[in-house]
Amino acid sequence: MAVFGVVLSGCGVNDGSEIHEATLLLLAIDKLGAKAACFAPDKVQAGVANHYNGKPGADIRNMLIESARIARGAIRPLSEARADALDALALPGGFGAAKNLSSFAKDGAACQVDPDLERLLRQMHAARKPIGAACIAPVILARVFGPQKPLLTIGDDGKTAQALEGMGARHQPAPATGVVVDEENRFVTTPCYMLAQSISQVAVGMDALVKALLELMRPLT
Amino acid sequence: MAVFGVVLSGCGVNDGSEIHEATLLLLAIDKLGAKAACFAPDKVQAGVANHYNGKPGADIRNMLIESARIARGAIRPLSEARADALDALALPGGFGAAKNLSSFAKDGAACQVDPDLERLLRQMHAARKPIGAACIAPVILARVFGPQKPLLTIGDDGKTAQALEGMGARHQPAPATGVVVDEENRFVTTPCYMLAQSISQVAVGMDALVKALLELMRPLT
Repeated sequence: MAVFGVVLSGCGVNDGSEIHEATLLLLAIDKLGAKAACFAPDKVQAGVANHYNGKPGADIRNMLIESARIARGAIRPLSEARADALDALALPGGFGAAKNLSSFAKDGAACQVDPDLERLLRQMHAARKPIGAACIAPVILARVFGPQKPLLTIGDDGKTAQALEGMGARHQPAPATGVVVDEENRFVTTPCYMLAQSISQVAVGMDALVKALLELMRPLT
Repeated sequence: MAVFGVVLSGCGVNDGSEIHEATLLLLAIDKLGAKAACFAPDKVQAGVANHYNGKPGADIRNMLIESARIARGAIRPLSEARADALDALALPGGFGAAKNLSSFAKDGAACQVDPDLERLLRQMHAARKPIGAACIAPVILARVFGPQKPLLTIGDDGKTAQALEGMGARHQPAPATGVVVDEENRFVTTPCYMLAQSISQVAVGMDALVKALLELMRPLT
């Protein structure tokens, strides 16, 4: 059974992993006959957002502990993730991808990526194992793999697409439920809530993402 | 378009709404052509659980603010919910149903139910509008509607079934993806993670719950 590493970054669209995207990614992996192994950095979140009134919260939260809410406790520190135990890797979106796993929200094209995530991404890529990213998470692939000129989508947002290209990626627009496949790098990206108008569209996009990742798990040529 | 009130109780299986159940309930409602209106009590949670190590946390969290993570901000205080604006009501599970919305986890068959929720449930029932409950949430229907001898399921857990019956309900065992329909009271219940071994089973159960609730939305006889 194929094992998908799933990297979470907290629990909530504004300061962590987008909950619908993460849940529907886990559903797609299970429905399509694979297994999810969840990871998150054992580190303090960049901030906490009050999701009711939109204001910053005062408390301090840890990504691993909050992500465990989505994973129902079945999660390990990202530092323990090893590419040789995984068949694919997938990153749901949410601002956590741009605030916690990377500094894209603050630094744009000059962003930094969490070192444990960067190591894992490079290991997966070197092993020619497929990597998926949804919503805003493709910016992380652009930052780490810019020199490989990855083909990615973040939907149709001009400013973010420009930032992707500023890091060396090629941007291809896609509708909410579409996927963009980079056969060469074995990357699959999908816009989800960058564009989705409903949770059903996110479900369709996540199914398409996981299907495309499974198709890329072919023997090395 | 039918409007389903969805009552949340926090964000996480151990101290709030079970995230997969809540998300997959929202997905089922959207997929089946209805609309969700989310509510949660604007009150402090009974406690906070660290979902990584299983221990109690020290911080204080508000149900409405945490539930807003699942609802992506589209949520209102439960005190503002009115039965005449809703066509059906649905309660996902998670310990929040037994710790926050009711005191079942502590008090068993002698539990209390949040007064705003009890008011809304009684209004819906009086208007013959269907009510769904998943996982452990059926205990709330048993507590409020015991005298109406509701037919409910919490799966096959003997001790909880006994508590349900202690409150006046009739318990019918069901598999993870099954639903039990009480035509008379217009209640639909499904076990979800009381029994489910996978997130896919939860998705199937939630689809079945919403379908059954839609079927119960027939004209009054």
